[in-house]
Amino acid sequence: MPKGRLEAFSDGVIAILITIMVLELHTPQGTSWDALREDVPVLLAYALSFIYLGIYWNNHHHMLAAVHRVSGAALWANLHLLFWLSLVPLTTAWMSENDFPPIPTAVYGMTLLAAAIAYYLLQTILLRVDGGQSMLRAAIGTDFKGKASPLLYCLGIGLSFVNRWAGVTVYVVVALMWLVPDRRVERTLTAGRGDPG
Amino acid sequence: MPKGRLEAFSDGVIAILITIMVLELHTPQGTSWDALREDVPVLLAYALSFIYLGIYWNNHHHMLAAVHRVSGAALWANLHLLFWLSLVPLTTAWMSENDFPPIPTAVYGMTLLAAAIAYYLLQTILLRVDGGQSMLRAAIGTDFKGKASPLLYCLGIGLSFVNRWAGVTVYVVVALMWLVPDRRVERTLTAGRGDPG
Amino acid sequence: MPKGRLEAFSDGVIAILITIMVLELHTPQGTSWDALREDVPVLLAYALSFIYLGIYWNNHHHMLAAVHRVSGAALWANLHLLFWLSLVPLTTAWMSENDFPPIPTAVYGMTLLAAAIAYYLLQTILLRVDGGQSMLRAAIGTDFKGKASPLLYCLGIGLSFVNRWAGVTVYVVVALMWLVPDRRVERTLTAGRGDPG
Amino acid sequence: MPKGRLEAFSDGVIAILITIMVLELHTPQGTSWDALREDVPVLLAYALSFIYLGIYWNNHHHMLAAVHRVSGAALWANLHLLFWLSLVPLTTAWMSENDFPPIPTAVYGMTLLAAAIAYYLLQTILLRVDGGQSMLRAAIGTDFKGKASPLLYCLGIGLSFVNRWAGVTVYVVVALMWLVPDRRVERTLTAGRGDPG
Repeated sequence: MPKGRLEAFSDGVIAILITIMVLELHTPQGTSWDALREDVPVLLAYALSFIYLGIYWNNHHHMLAAVHRVSGAALWANLHLLFWLSLVPLTTAWMSENDFPPIPTAVYGMTLLAAAIAYYLLQTILLRVDGGQSMLRAAIGTDFKGKASPLLYCLGIGLSFVNRWAGVTVYVVVALMWLVPDRRVERTLTAGRGDPG
Repeated sequence: MPKGRLEAFSDGVIAILITIMVLELHTPQGTSWDALREDVPVLLAYALSFIYLGIYWNNHHHMLAAVHRVSGAALWANLHLLFWLSLVPLTTAWMSENDFPPIPTAVYGMTLLAAAIAYYLLQTILLRVDGGQSMLRAAIGTDFKGKASPLLYCLGIGLSFVNRWAGVTVYVVVALMWLVPDRRVERTLTAGRGDPG
Repeated sequence: MPKGRLEAFSDGVIAILITIMVLELHTPQGTSWDALREDVPVLLAYALSFIYLGIYWNNHHHMLAAVHRVSGAALWANLHLLFWLSLVPLTTAWMSENDFPPIPTAVYGMTLLAAAIAYYLLQTILLRVDGGQSMLRAAIGTDFKGKASPLLYCLGIGLSFVNRWAGVTVYVVVALMWLVPDRRVERTLTAGRGDPG
Repeated sequence: MPKGRLEAFSDGVIAILITIMVLELHTPQGTSWDALREDVPVLLAYALSFIYLGIYWNNHHHMLAAVHRVSGAALWANLHLLFWLSLVPLTTAWMSENDFPPIPTAVYGMTLLAAAIAYYLLQTILLRVDGGQSMLRAAIGTDFKGKASPLLYCLGIGLSFVNRWAGVTVYVVVALMWLVPDRRVERTLTAGRGDPG
């Protein structure tokens, strides 16, 4: 099954999610700097979720670039991933509008955890379709980040109940870990094309 | 008429629908587990509609992959299908926010029924354009699911007035019926390419 | 300049517009048939605007299929058209939620009129880029519908002040006029390919 | 790395942003001309932001057309640009619904300034990937507009505190400056193809 429409649909959904989050932001109450300052935590939570969705789009982009075809099961695994990502705007709003209390902050982490697991499932299914010698397999390598993220999310969820900022800090750290350029896939893809650049 | 833009437009609309449903979800009132628990029926209704829209996208994807060209009538039949699908977020919200009372639950089923009929019309028009020997004809086969769904929706609509959960249960069963992998089209397409895989 | 991204962007915007209109629909107050019945005029206005946006997408699709390249001016003429279309959800809501009073009904017609003029401008610019012997020129022919629509919108705008339903009726008539299959472009395109079908 | 999905994702996000701004517009209070007149400043602010997003789409379109490949860093620079653009609907609403007071008007300019800087960063990264002899380098030329815009935004931000309309006027002037057809890239691209037209 060609992968074009799967890519297009995923791009569409992630583009919409990353954009409609802004609809959950309310204009500040009043027109002073103080009014804006009160909204800063909400804006930072928005920025964090924007980065997370950007990371997912980016990784999804690379993963699909490394496979040649997809199966029916991959379509559903992809929708499953999109389902959890679609809850990000809601949990971001719940967490940030209430000033980061324990339960919503933990639930935010659970959404990230569920998305990470869904991503792992999708990756596993794509690998099975593509076969053992696949370019994707080579590109993933030891998949350190993919394995560390769920553990860190669990840590963040637990810490949310200890101190509200500790949980959020872990989520920020995971985002930064992914933001650090990851040239594995790019390098492998380039190597696969015999391109020295 | 080439089918590319029809696919792209449908992907766009379904991607938007599946995503904006989340805008109908309100953040829980309060920050306790109880507040979240109260929202669980709304979240489950959201998940059900997410799956339905995913099924439509999936089936639409397969159906269009099996035809070579589309007609002007197919463009309108497609828009007609998208119209009914566009009402899914509204009827989902009406049903779930009011805790699944008879009439909204029946109206939810009517929207699904109308979408199923619109899908059938689109399929019929595409078959006419593609001719009798078409790959789509072979892929559809007896179309058991396509024929059973409208009957089951009617059953669900009727049962909504008897017991609120009976109607919803039928809608869940239909969704599960479609979720079970349907390899007909995939197999036919693969066979058509002479690919043993 | 290739036309691919212009088509993709326009498809995106029209797909979003046709879909987000549903966000302007409020769930009925209450769960009775009466509650639903009160929303029927709003739903019909939604259906009318859905059809109008569908007509624009359809015509846009055909028009772009008949040209080979676009100019910088065409990009802006296209954005100008999308601007007026983007006001359709707003004027639909203003008109229908207030039960079709004279001024909002007239303003709805003015939005349609402005979109029709913008479409005509875009068509003119595309023709200039494509040259006098273009396939688009042949496809348009006498452009009866394109010329009649603005006059009918003016009539509808005027009639809105006489009788609320008279104005809406004219808008419905224009929509129906466009819905009647228009095989000109399709026929010309097919002929241009030397395809007898 | 091929640029197709980057273009598609950016088109998606900008198309959504330009469209969902309309969701921030409230239907006028009442059904009189006066009610509509009160909304005129909000509508004009909407039109200004629509034009700005259109300019960004247009320039983005041209810039990507002039490069052959993108890097991982370009994906993130692009997301960074989209982040600032995503705040445009919010700052537009904050500024216009409060009748253009100093601070929100200045913050609107800051969003435009941040987007302009992000655009410049993206352009710089694309140039580095494409190499010194790139078509993009030739197309940009002295980049007068790109250099003048941030300075003008700073002027507008400052003037917002002096007189509310002075700041907005500067933003309108920058938009007009970009709207004036800029044939540089188009000419260079055409020349690169050896096309005299």
